[in-house]
Amino acid sequence: MLPEELFRLSQRFSRLPGVGEKTALRYAMFLLLADPAIARGLGQELIALHDNVTPCERCGYVARRSTEGPSLCAICSDHRRDPSLLCVVARVQDLLAIERSGAMRGRYHVLGKLLSPLEGVHASDLPIASIRSRIQNEGIREVLLATPPTVDGEASALFIAQEIGDLEVRISRLASGVPHGGDLEFADQITLGRAIDGRHQVVHDFSEKVVSK
Amino acid sequence: MLPEELFRLSQRFSRLPGVGEKTALRYAMFLLLADPAIARGLGQELIALHDNVTPCERCGYVARRSTEGPSLCAICSDHRRDPSLLCVVARVQDLLAIERSGAMRGRYHVLGKLLSPLEGVHASDLPIASIRSRIQNEGIREVLLATPPTVDGEASALFIAQEIGDLEVRISRLASGVPHGGDLEFADQITLGRAIDGRHQVVHDFSEKVVSK
Repeated sequence: MLPEELFRLSQRFSRLPGVGEKTALRYAMFLLLADPAIARGLGQELIALHDNVTPCERCGYVARRSTEGPSLCAICSDHRRDPSLLCVVARVQDLLAIERSGAMRGRYHVLGKLLSPLEGVHASDLPIASIRSRIQNEGIREVLLATPPTVDGEASALFIAQEIGDLEVRISRLASGVPHGGDLEFADQITLGRAIDGRHQVVHDFSEKVVSK
Repeated sequence: MLPEELFRLSQRFSRLPGVGEKTALRYAMFLLLADPAIARGLGQELIALHDNVTPCERCGYVARRSTEGPSLCAICSDHRRDPSLLCVVARVQDLLAIERSGAMRGRYHVLGKLLSPLEGVHASDLPIASIRSRIQNEGIREVLLATPPTVDGEASALFIAQEIGDLEVRISRLASGVPHGGDLEFADQITLGRAIDGRHQVVHDFSEKVVSK
């Protein structure tokens, strides 16, 4: 029923994550009815994307493609960053969220995937070798495993911790607890349990000190 | 934080209907990490889209762009179609749904929008003049107003019916009632009320006849 071109465009849209047939057709129809400059502009960006941008060869974040030497991202190329702290994240979006907090002064390693036997991601798919080689060659003293607090995220963190446990490096996880501005009434029981386990001592001068358990 | 190119691509994705900033970045990251052929293929389809395809100049459905004469869609060009029946729909997606039913042998007119004062669509935005001119010039004897059974759809149908009421043409609406396979227990009261109002007489030879009210 649809003209060949519109059908092909819909099919290509439906390869994007979370986009089904109906959403894909909705995108295609929107672009057909909108100003042609919108479709052409998006098309040109897509064609040029891989010419200009590539995953960073060291950490997996996004880098400008370099013709001289390895393509390194802005974070790996920034010499003011603390080279001794490595933050391991699942996705680039997580890296961006952590950067927005302003609390991470180290560098990153983007896994790109988490252990997930159901989705066919196994231990051998995680970049253990490159994390080990970075620890050994870049003077890293602490690895913060900032994978999300989900089953897949926890399993991946545990696995990576085992695989690098023989190296002389401190291994840490993000603190877990009640979110800022959250209401205790609506916090789930696991979150609340972790917030209690990780409780801080409030000392008289109003600075905080972690209770060692 | 993001390289310029990835930021621009995300911004362009976020112009698609229903796509916010986070979804747009998710699409962009997916394409960066996937085979470059996926981004380039989508880009080429988008650039070529308006060169090859255009809204049909008669009915608003999708047509191949023609250099000789007006660009007419496959339905308007199909001489086996019943020229006396015109089906008015809101969107191309609705046209496709009706075509899939196989029950419409006439032609279409795609409004592209419905009356919606909140979204700034007013009576003057509906293509009344082109519907009137088609009725007068194409030998149309029945106009089926197949806009959706929503507030905007009903208002648009009522308005179009008023605006073409002076022409010698039968004006109809889709039947409203309980959907095939639906459970009466879960049907809403308006749907059930309409199903009762539009009830059919079941005659002895098991064919059906509409009760005239």
